Parts: sequence; C-alpha cells; structure tokens
Amino acid sequence: MTISPLARPFPAIPDIAGVRIGTATARYKPWLRADVTVVELAPGTTVAGVLTRSKCPSPEVETCRANLPQGSARALVVNAGNSNAFTGMTGRDASRRQVARLAELVGCPADQVFVASTGVIGVPLPADKAEAGVTAAHAALGEASFEAATAAIGTTDTFAKGAIAHAFVAGQRVTVAGIVKGSGMIAPDMATMLGFVFTDAVVAAPLLQAMLAEATAHSFNSITVDSDTSTSDTVLAFATGKAGHAALTAPDSPGADAFAAALTQVCRELAHLVVRDGEGATKFITIDVTGAEDDRAAKVVALSIANSPLVKTAIAGGDANWGRVVMAVGKAGERAERDRLAIDFGVTRVAANGMVVPDYDEAPVTAHLAGSDVDIGVDLGIGDGRARVWTCDLTHGYISINADYRS
Amino acid sequence: MTISPLARPFPAIPDIAGVRIGTATARYKPWLRADVTVVELAPGTTVAGVLTRSKCPSPEVETCRANLPQGSARALVVNAGNSNAFTGMTGRDASRRQVARLAELVGCPADQVFVASTGVIGVPLPADKAEAGVTAAHAALGEASFEAATAAIGTTDTFAKGAIAHAFVAGQRVTVAGIVKGSGMIAPDMATMLGFVFTDAVVAAPLLQAMLAEATAHSFNSITVDSDTSTSDTVLAFATGKAGHAALTAPDSPGADAFAAALTQVCRELAHLVVRDGEGATKFITIDVTGAEDDRAAKVVALSIANSPLVKTAIAGGDANWGRVVMAVGKAGERAERDRLAIDFGVTRVAANGMVVPDYDEAPVTAHLAGSDVDIGVDLGIGDGRARVWTCDLTHGYISINADYRS
Repeated sequence: MTISPLARPFPAIPDIAGVRIGTATARYKPWLRADVTVVELAPGTTVAGVLTRSKCPSPEVETCRANLPQGSARALVVNAGNSNAFTGMTGRDASRRQVARLAELVGCPADQVFVASTGVIGVPLPADKAEAGVTAAHAALGEASFEAATAAIGTTDTFAKGAIAHAFVAGQRVTVAGIVKGSGMIAPDMATMLGFVFTDAVVAAPLLQAMLAEATAHSFNSITVDSDTSTSDTVLAFATGKAGHAALTAPDSPGADAFAAALTQVCRELAHLVVRDGEGATKFITIDVTGAEDDRAAKVVALSIANSPLVKTAIAGGDANWGRVVMAVGKAGERAERDRLAIDFGVTRVAANGMVVPDYDEAPVTAHLAGSDVDIGVDLGIGDGRARVWTCDLTHGYISINADYRS
Repeated sequence: MTISPLARPFPAIPDIAGVRIGTATARYKPWLRADVTVVELAPGTTVAGVLTRSKCPSPEVETCRANLPQGSARALVVNAGNSNAFTGMTGRDASRRQVARLAELVGCPADQVFVASTGVIGVPLPADKAEAGVTAAHAALGEASFEAATAAIGTTDTFAKGAIAHAFVAGQRVTVAGIVKGSGMIAPDMATMLGFVFTDAVVAAPLLQAMLAEATAHSFNSITVDSDTSTSDTVLAFATGKAGHAALTAPDSPGADAFAAALTQVCRELAHLVVRDGEGATKFITIDVTGAEDDRAAKVVALSIANSPLVKTAIAGGDANWGRVVMAVGKAGERAERDRLAIDFGVTRVAANGMVVPDYDEAPVTAHLAGSDVDIGVDLGIGDGRARVWTCDLTHGYISINADYRS
C-alpha cells in the first residue's frame, strides 16, 4: 500500500495515567499483523461516545450505544479486519462472548466494556479467534504504544494517525491524546471511522458527552471522503481522572473551556488525518461557506460542494472550475441567490455577483491549485451562517482501490 | 470521443406533423459542427415542461419557467457548447436577444419561444453568434432530421439518443418522439440534461403538464450518473395537435391513458439512454427497492444506493459486494430494519434476515455481474413502498473525463 502523499508523521504521545494498551494477532485475515487491541482503563474512568447514524449498525455499535448511558468504562477492545456488521445472531453472539471474556479478565461488569470492529461487512466475527485474541491482547497489557495500537486498529489506512494536545485545568497540566483509523467510506456521521480519545483529566461523563458531541460536529462530522457512511462508525472518549484536579462537571467549571479546546483540537486533527488518508487523495481541500441563511444551511451547502464528484475531479485535475462550484451550490437546495454568490480559490476571487470576475488573475489560482492544500471559499451573501468542512479530491486512485477491494 | 459500450442505435423517427427542424453552426466553440437548433411548431401547439430545481439556474431556464404558464409554443432554440449559466446581465441580455430574434422570424410573441443552452458554465452567450446562429437555423427549417438535431444539441454525448412510441387516441394513431442530450452531471432533477418530446396528439396544456410531471418522476428524475445536478436541466414536451382527434383535456378523456403510456415510455427510454451514455459507464444498473415504508422512502433508499461511489465502483469491478449495499441502505436515513433486509443480485438472493445467505451460489451472481446490465434488488421487509431507479458504474473513465474537461 502506497503511503498517502498527504500523510503526516505520528506525534510523540506519552503514556497517559490510567491507560494501558496491549495488542495481539487473532488472524481475522490471513496476515501476521496485530489485529486485536485491548485498552484497560483505571477504575473511575468516565466515557462519552458518538456513533454512526446508520440504520444498519453493527452489533458492536449497539453494545456501545447500550453501555454509554451509565458513563463508566474499564476496557475497550477493537477488532480490525472484520466489521462484524450484518452478520445476524451469529455475529452478535461472537461479539458478546468477546466482551464477556474481557469483562472477566478485567474484573468489571460487561457494561463497562466498549467494543468496535472494522473491516469486511457480512462475515461473522469468528468467536474462537475473537476470544483467544482478546485474551492474548489482555495478557500483553502495557506492552503497546499508542502508535502500535493505531497500526493494530487500521485496515486500508496507509499511515498511522494520532494527535495530542494539552490543557491546564485548575493548575494541573492534562493530556488529551487520540488515535483514529479510516480512509474510505468516510462521510459525516463518520463512515468506517474509529476514533478513540484518552485523557487523564477528571471529567464527569455527561459533560464529557456534551463536549465530545460538540467537538465531533466540527471535526469528524465535518469531513467527507466519498459521501458514504459506514455501519460501524465510532468515536469514544475516555477520561481516567488520574490528573486528580477538581472534577469538571459543568461547562463553567474552572478549566472546562481549556479542556474542551484541547479535546476539539485533537478531534479536528484526527479528522484532518482521515481526509489526508482518503482513498486516492492527492489534495486536502478546505471549503468555507459564509453568508448563508444560518449555520445549518452553510453546512449543507459546504457538504454539497465537498461531495460533488465533479468538483472533486476538477480539483484533482488542477482546474479552477468554479462553474462546478456554482452547480454544487445550486443543487444543495438551500437558499441561494445566484446574483450575490462569490467564489474564491485560495485568496483570489474568481466569481462575484452572479458571474466571473472579469480579468481575474489566473496565475495565483493555478499556483494555488498546484499545491497539495486547496481552499475554496463561497460567500452566499444573504446572511451570517457559516461552516467549514474538509474533503479530498477524487482520483484514479479511488477507483483502483474500490473496484478491486473485495468483501 | 469513444462511443459508450452501452450505446443504442438511434431509432427511425418519421416527421411529426407541425414540427420543422433546422440547424446551423454558430461556432460557440472552435468547431465545425452544428450547435444551434431551431424547431418551429405549428400554431396551436401546447407545451409542458419540467425544469431544474437548482437554486442557480441559467437565464434560459428562467425564460422557460416564465413562459410555461401560458401553455402555447411556436418555437424552440437550443444552443450547445455554452450553457450561459452564471453569466450575469450580459448572458441574460444575449439570451433575450436570441429569443426576440426567433420570435420575430416566426412571427409570434416572445413568450411562445422556448430556449435551452448546454455547455460550459460562466461564459456569457456571445450575442452576435447567437443571433446569427438562430437566424441561419431558422432559414434551414425543414432540412434537419431528429437525428441531426440530436447531434446538434449534444456536448459530451458519445452517441445520439432518441426514442419513439405510438398510441391510438380516439381511433387516431399518434406519434410521440423524443430526443435527449446528457452524459455527466446527471442526477435526479436532471442535471445537464436537455430532453425534448414532440407529438402530433391534441393535448390541452394543463393535462400535458400533469402527464409530463408524472412521466418525469419515473424516468428523468429516477436516474443518476454522478449525483450532480446542473443549472440548465430542461425537459419540454410539445403537442402540435395535427393528429386532429378530439382533444385530450382530462385524465379520463378517451385515449388519455394510452397517450400517457406512450409519453412515459419515451421519457423512460430517453432517461435510460442518458445513463447508457453516463461518463465512463460500462454497466447499466437497475435498482429496485421494495418493502419500504412508502414509495418516497423507497426512492430515497434506491438513490442512496445508486449514488454510492462504493457501490458503483464495486459493480465496475464485477464484485457482488452486498455489504456496500447494506451500507448505502443504512446511510439513507429512512426506516430500515437490519434483520429484515434482503438483497438480490440478478435473480440470486445473497443476503436475507440481516446476514449473508449461507452457501448461496456465487456462480450465477458472478455471471450476472460480468454482463453489461446489472440488477440489484433490495427488500426492506417493512411495508409496501417501492421504487426503481437506474444508474451506471463509476470507473476510471469518469475520472479521466472530468479531471481533464475544462471550463
């Protein structure tokens, strides 16, 4: 697998107190790599999560959804190579057995174990491999780094994706670190994307949930690779509380803002990395929509542009084809007035007042589009609504990967 | 331009009484082909139309929208090579001048002239060329066949697309013939698609409008190539009344059913031909969704499948990847119950009751996918709603065409 030209190096992530990681090889596919990851979390760890809105979710997603309300987590297991989605009772039973086994090993109630699987849809998780794998990964706790875990949760990813940020909360320095896997089937609602964020901060579960939901809206749910949404999307945040500061319990708790900012930064960086590993991607595209009726409308328009195959192929070809941007604005269905519309590529305004800017300078536009980071700005000129989303271009690489990858 | 492997020959279309066609070369692009088409319609011709829902429509679309309510048509002009969309006052004035010139030549009010343009967005229609072109095409009235007109309205089309059907209305044999252009930027709401249907039947404008709207819902608005919708989509139907039978004025007029069936058949054939000329298409895909909550929900699910890049690339690769179909059902957002879902490829049921059919025979599935016509059936198992939509696969050809084509 060729590494994405938009790849970023994995950051240095220190240990986080209360988090221990182990990996093992269950051989969900005929490979030698680690494909089961176990994370043990200290007693008292709180948890929050955002899950796929797919109407056909995997049993793992259902387990997380059922366990989230009680707010406590002691363990996480992640399987790579088999999503266990659409596998009926057989798949459900296998996942439950794995979760029960991990609960037994950790010594906690089963509803404090969280689980995610990613990979092929429709092949039941092999129960024996899953149980042996989770047992082996638990036995290896403490031996794996965040980077090793990231490799073990990946599937079609071409590079390991992690992010880290710090915040001062009540005088204490806390760490927020996250890892993510995902490359295709990425759309808002997170597609085949698994993201896990860990912090030593002390955060009450309801507040953590609210902060994660907000951070996700502006990160994982503001990206799209191919508009497709998976059956297994999962983002979980775990707070071990080992930093020992006064607990964050409300948005106005001292330090809550700083912690939320760090959490949002990590989520945004992870989301960007997923786009940077978008299947076949050669350009990282930022789309800003301003002047919309409201923020919701702005996001609909921005995603219409970001999901347009014609816009994405134009960028792949280095073509400042603002006509296709007009098309995507028009089809979004939100309020727009053609004659107030303005479009920028990079810092150059190419269209305004319903037509091309006469004699705009093409040189900086061409230079901007030749780079690996492309910015498209659209001002609708009718209100204060704004949104920013990120996507990648659509290339031959995407076709090659997806016309061959077999279930 | 390579002819699509899914192309169909142009049918024999006889003259239709009351319809005269002429073409000319305005040279909207540096080419020698005809690019202006004029159709003169006999006095008394009624008209109906369905236009793009884009919020950024071309001035031509606005002209048609303004002229449709009075229900009479004497002429049509079509420009190819320049869509005149997003061209501000300059483009609007050029289009108005062209329409006024044709009204003068035909001797009719300007609001009985209909107009459509297709091609590059954002370049104002050159007024002098447009006026000279329409004048020359009018002078050539009676010289062009439907097939010649189809070539003259095409842009990236790789073959000429036409359809014909007959019906008996009050003992009279009437003809319904249609032509269409379109290849990319095709989505429901018709994308860069222009379709024109002509009949000698006698049909009151309000009834023709109702029939065309219904026919369009199950044809032009049930296809998608790439989910993109253009600023210029136009379908117009003209009834010259030359067949001379008792006028069809209401759905229960004798013969109205037969006429509607012929109209629907022509629209459906034209819509299929657009998919068959989809950019890069190598497979014609029919998607049937049954058992949905209602017909509307079924269509949403069907289009979610039809627009999924992952489903379309899987079909391109001959891969019966029903897991991606599950994904597309799940992301559609309509009611679905995973454990009632059934999926067929061709006549083979591959998934049922929320999981793969154990030991289903892969041989007929592989054979079906190797052909050029692929059928996907999805039964949601929860109601009586059903919908059928058509699309094509997503291939390297699409990327090549669209990463290079320049505004």
